[in-house]
Amino acid sequence: MSEFQRPIRLGMVGGGNDAFIGAVHRIAARIDGQYELLAGALSSTPDKAQASGKALGLASDRTYDDFKSMAIREARLKDGIEAVAIVTPNHMHMPAAREFLKRGIHVICDKPLTSNLADARKMAQAVEKSDALFILTHNYTGYPLMRQARTMIANGDLGDIRVVQVEYPQDWLTQAQPEDNKQASWRIDPARSGAGGSTGDIGTHAFNLACFVTGLTPDSLCADIQSFVKGRQVDDNAHVMLRFQEGARGMLWCSQVAPGNENGLRLRVYGAKGGIEWEQEAPNVMRHTVFGEPTRLLTRAGSGADGQPEHLVRTPGGHPEGYLEGFANIYLEAATCIRAKQEGRDMQNETLLPGLADGLMGMRFIDACVRSSARNAAWISLQ
Amino acid sequence: MSEFQRPIRLGMVGGGNDAFIGAVHRIAARIDGQYELLAGALSSTPDKAQASGKALGLASDRTYDDFKSMAIREARLKDGIEAVAIVTPNHMHMPAAREFLKRGIHVICDKPLTSNLADARKMAQAVEKSDALFILTHNYTGYPLMRQARTMIANGDLGDIRVVQVEYPQDWLTQAQPEDNKQASWRIDPARSGAGGSTGDIGTHAFNLACFVTGLTPDSLCADIQSFVKGRQVDDNAHVMLRFQEGARGMLWCSQVAPGNENGLRLRVYGAKGGIEWEQEAPNVMRHTVFGEPTRLLTRAGSGADGQPEHLVRTPGGHPEGYLEGFANIYLEAATCIRAKQEGRDMQNETLLPGLADGLMGMRFIDACVRSSARNAAWISLQ
Amino acid sequence: MSEFQRPIRLGMVGGGNDAFIGAVHRIAARIDGQYELLAGALSSTPDKAQASGKALGLASDRTYDDFKSMAIREARLKDGIEAVAIVTPNHMHMPAAREFLKRGIHVICDKPLTSNLADARKMAQAVEKSDALFILTHNYTGYPLMRQARTMIANGDLGDIRVVQVEYPQDWLTQAQPEDNKQASWRIDPARSGAGGSTGDIGTHAFNLACFVTGLTPDSLCADIQSFVKGRQVDDNAHVMLRFQEGARGMLWCSQVAPGNENGLRLRVYGAKGGIEWEQEAPNVMRHTVFGEPTRLLTRAGSGADGQPEHLVRTPGGHPEGYLEGFANIYLEAATCIRAKQEGRDMQNETLLPGLADGLMGMRFIDACVRSSARNAAWISLQ
Amino acid sequence: MSEFQRPIRLGMVGGGNDAFIGAVHRIAARIDGQYELLAGALSSTPDKAQASGKALGLASDRTYDDFKSMAIREARLKDGIEAVAIVTPNHMHMPAAREFLKRGIHVICDKPLTSNLADARKMAQAVEKSDALFILTHNYTGYPLMRQARTMIANGDLGDIRVVQVEYPQDWLTQAQPEDNKQASWRIDPARSGAGGSTGDIGTHAFNLACFVTGLTPDSLCADIQSFVKGRQVDDNAHVMLRFQEGARGMLWCSQVAPGNENGLRLRVYGAKGGIEWEQEAPNVMRHTVFGEPTRLLTRAGSGADGQPEHLVRTPGGHPEGYLEGFANIYLEAATCIRAKQEGRDMQNETLLPGLADGLMGMRFIDACVRSSARNAAWISLQ
Repeated sequence: MSEFQRPIRLGMVGGGNDAFIGAVHRIAARIDGQYELLAGALSSTPDKAQASGKALGLASDRTYDDFKSMAIREARLKDGIEAVAIVTPNHMHMPAAREFLKRGIHVICDKPLTSNLADARKMAQAVEKSDALFILTHNYTGYPLMRQARTMIANGDLGDIRVVQVEYPQDWLTQAQPEDNKQASWRIDPARSGAGGSTGDIGTHAFNLACFVTGLTPDSLCADIQSFVKGRQVDDNAHVMLRFQEGARGMLWCSQVAPGNENGLRLRVYGAKGGIEWEQEAPNVMRHTVFGEPTRLLTRAGSGADGQPEHLVRTPGGHPEGYLEGFANIYLEAATCIRAKQEGRDMQNETLLPGLADGLMGMRFIDACVRSSARNAAWISLQ
Repeated sequence: MSEFQRPIRLGMVGGGNDAFIGAVHRIAARIDGQYELLAGALSSTPDKAQASGKALGLASDRTYDDFKSMAIREARLKDGIEAVAIVTPNHMHMPAAREFLKRGIHVICDKPLTSNLADARKMAQAVEKSDALFILTHNYTGYPLMRQARTMIANGDLGDIRVVQVEYPQDWLTQAQPEDNKQASWRIDPARSGAGGSTGDIGTHAFNLACFVTGLTPDSLCADIQSFVKGRQVDDNAHVMLRFQEGARGMLWCSQVAPGNENGLRLRVYGAKGGIEWEQEAPNVMRHTVFGEPTRLLTRAGSGADGQPEHLVRTPGGHPEGYLEGFANIYLEAATCIRAKQEGRDMQNETLLPGLADGLMGMRFIDACVRSSARNAAWISLQ
Repeated sequence: MSEFQRPIRLGMVGGGNDAFIGAVHRIAARIDGQYELLAGALSSTPDKAQASGKALGLASDRTYDDFKSMAIREARLKDGIEAVAIVTPNHMHMPAAREFLKRGIHVICDKPLTSNLADARKMAQAVEKSDALFILTHNYTGYPLMRQARTMIANGDLGDIRVVQVEYPQDWLTQAQPEDNKQASWRIDPARSGAGGSTGDIGTHAFNLACFVTGLTPDSLCADIQSFVKGRQVDDNAHVMLRFQEGARGMLWCSQVAPGNENGLRLRVYGAKGGIEWEQEAPNVMRHTVFGEPTRLLTRAGSGADGQPEHLVRTPGGHPEGYLEGFANIYLEAATCIRAKQEGRDMQNETLLPGLADGLMGMRFIDACVRSSARNAAWISLQ
Repeated sequence: MSEFQRPIRLGMVGGGNDAFIGAVHRIAARIDGQYELLAGALSSTPDKAQASGKALGLASDRTYDDFKSMAIREARLKDGIEAVAIVTPNHMHMPAAREFLKRGIHVICDKPLTSNLADARKMAQAVEKSDALFILTHNYTGYPLMRQARTMIANGDLGDIRVVQVEYPQDWLTQAQPEDNKQASWRIDPARSGAGGSTGDIGTHAFNLACFVTGLTPDSLCADIQSFVKGRQVDDNAHVMLRFQEGARGMLWCSQVAPGNENGLRLRVYGAKGGIEWEQEAPNVMRHTVFGEPTRLLTRAGSGADGQPEHLVRTPGGHPEGYLEGFANIYLEAATCIRAKQEGRDMQNETLLPGLADGLMGMRFIDACVRSSARNAAWISLQ
């Protein structure tokens, strides 16, 4: 058992009213007992904000109607929040984050970084000016086998990387969605979500994971994006070809109109000496082939689990961990970084926690997809 | 969002010193925010008990050297614990549970019920005399697809059940284990674990799950149990044939010496009209075949997820939940039952939470396996 | 390319009228071009025999109304058949085989050996008296990965074998079958099929494969067999516990009433050093685990395919071969043995082709299952 | 049983010397007994041609040193061959086929059509002038489940098709191959194979299968092709984006440098109402999802196998058929077409057998991939 550490005081912006991702962040923050949720501006509608705060057991004087008031007051409180989770629709990420960053409150922000490039630049300025941490929840990088994959590739186990196949099909937007679908409504509204639909919502995850695991530097892409459902204003399917500066090539497919796929993020990487294959829906196993040898099944916390950080192993192999534990790994390491920061050390790079740079690259990815497709799939630089 | 409810004050007996199952119980209790851990007798060694309490952030005056002192004092405290998790080796379940039960503190106890039948009878008396709840963590019944399976079978979707195939292979005890393996050492010591090795540790889970899902009444069994590793005093492999009162027949295999199996609990049930198949290591999907039709893949929270209790759905389909969430489901429903009990209602049966009856049946299962095998696989009644 | 060899002249008894297994034998004989089918007594009904002979392109003077006339005349022909495939219902295996064996014509006979033990003894006598070969088509031993498994175990790769789990579920007899189902009608008629239903039809395959792969000597079994479908006179489900003379224990389950299972033969073997797992429906891959190492996927003709006989490899890895190729492997090796025999050498053991001994053991298996079950699952010796 | 039909007299060009694909064609021709191989020009080296003919049991006067002499003499023989299988390296397809076509001998030719577009045009002329059939062995269209998929899509079961994901990874050319690897040497020699490497060898299969199953008309493509192995003159990996005239979009990936992939052809098609997924290495099952319903597993010859042609079903579900049976299906239907042609009827379209049009489209595919890539992935029309 490691030494007990006082839970970090956490606030939340967004996440009221049965929002999916807000609940996920709260569970992720609870799993390892490293946070206590004490304050929130949980909805932009005051009534809902109050009701949500009550439902979460927040004190009424720490349930805010807007994030700015929250940032101002919490920063002044003696026991104000040390960190805030921002789980609003995309267009509110920057305005909200900025208020906390400038007051030295650490920010754990959902992806993508913002809804547009102009906001992304403002977010960058806010992060750079602040002494607080900025962590972007590219949660799929929290899966232990993705850490092992990254380590294996960095160690040269696969040789020079040649081919990166990454895909992220879903099917929930196969049809025009009912008006009252809260999850869908903002995601397909360019004003709130940004110019990218599937590219922003899930393509950024796929792109980020591919870069995280391979360690390659994206060079350029060409894309053919579609809105198959009539009247939809953002893409619901995207085909992307990728080039990396080190010479590797890749393909990325994301879709929200692929019936039979629930949340099918899948990564395959091939090098001169071997290959790996992994699927998010079966996250406790990764196929690894050394060229010329039988494929081996590496499992979470199982035999051959070298390169899986010990602090991320909660249960022995065969006790499946999943999406929430992967997400919790981000929160667990964020706690480590926040405490280190409070003692003057910066551990974000060391822990591999995604942050501003990942967010900016994700925004370039969305923008490049949209622009490339508008130019008939011309190559667009990502640098 | 449902209404906020004050977390239940929880204590723990056992679970110090990096014990596997203690940590699992703590995570399971945290995931839904329904408990706060406030007191513990975490080890039978005072130094370790103190160190463990400190590591978990318990107040020093609520870190106890023994469970009896803990039960006495907590029962007297105005804000004493309302429930206690008992996660010791098997032989301590009864002595510990008894102290809390008699003082009206609800007990959440790890399985199997006790290490022997005499203790099981004492436990039964203690439970029956007490007004407090007794919940046994047969956690695999917490998987949403196992709930759906139970509902489907109860609804007659599979027709009259004919065949039940359940198995639970592991491989971690394939070789004689090192002396300092804490997980192994007590599990293979009859004095602490009981007469059953694999039968007690994992066979009871398999047996319980088969009964839970099918709703059948076990009638009798015959067993051939083995201790393949030289010098091992308890079984490490068991072959069991089952008869149910309704006429169905079954087979149960549990093993801790099956290389390549991490935690391979698997249940298959076949009736006159259809069949289902499910594996714990891929818990988010269940195969269902209506005889004469293509097999359908039912997923957690996916299309066709009728019969999965809404309160157990944290994330949409495709966001894999696993062992810890299944375990948390038991804790979540235990919280519901505890609160109902505090208001005078008994909801344990309604929520399907395992309890004393399951524990007693599990003990009869272990005992019958051992006795049957000693009598050359004679049939032993389970009634 | 190996040297050309004149195709062996082949006859067939049974297999007319769209019989399933007759067509399979004919394809298996054709795949490698080592046989030409020239004569047949394809049905016990003369009209059907003639029509079937015509449909297969047999000369009219080599289309016989009964197997005895066929044996007599073919044995006298200068270019008479050298071998005969016997693919009748079980009760005709012995009477037919006997006629050919006593005239020196090699017999390739479908399993099980006969429909009862008395016939099995007569078959044994006929085989022992004859100089001709007797090959029993336990075709699943023809899969290259089952050969590799046998070699691996013989080499000690798995250490001393401890546990053998074999199962063979199907679902096609889940309901009472229509009267006109030719495949079903004789299989569930004790007079034609024998005392065993699922035990004879598929249990013998499972039992044979387990023995073939492990090389273990079966010692005894106890069984609980059922006829779940009302009015059925033979078993449609069987649960069996096995003991081997070398100390290993096993379980066998066969069923024809398990909805969702088409032809689910599956073998798992565990020893002190490792384990293997294989399923007939995905026959081109076998899981192999060295204890303490990641599971490796061995593939047909792929990397790590040591122990797969070169003469059984028709296509590179990834070009799936299946049931018919496995069956053809038996016919291919039978051709090798027949030619060797014609030159005075006996190669049947060397090629591992199943024969009389396998057939007799299969009959003991069926008989023991039936007798054990009648005695409430008492242990019955297989020696 | 269907009526017996005299086997078709078959010749072969190429396929000597342990060539992989020649042996496959011979097995495919044998499986259903519809052909007898009587003549061959099996190698361009006279000694090898003679030795190969002998090894295959051909009469010496029907073993030819060159395909032209063979075509001339066989056309004059009273019992000369009725059809010829051409299984040479790509650059010899046209010269060989032409000789037989002009003499009225039906041609069954391996893919791709030729090694270059000029030859393809000559082949087209030869086919168009001839009254003989020209069948191209895009064997993967022979899998029963691919026929069912085509029928389902044609029936509108998936709604309007939106997305087509097809891939074909292999790993056998991951490293520079040894000089004496006969399979590799001509495939990576542009003079014999053509301008496409992986695009020609396997990309054409993937492209053809996608078009066959969906029934869509390819409009244009853009491609990024690579030769990752130093010194290799043809592509060993290709990333392709596809547009279809009906509005669907697709991606195609083929690779021969993807470690861990043996022969991983995989097709996924998504429409407005549903999706299907299929993998060649597990060809007996296809996933089918009606949007909003659980995924169903359709199996070869199993429940729900509507749309699988009866004449292609040799064995019941669960008896896996594979690559060779899929290939044999092409030969079986070719026999039907040849006999119909001999009676004056043209059945090639009706049977869906691939022919000249598929071959020309395949050549356009290769050419477009090469040209697009040379122009930095510009869109190239396929019309």
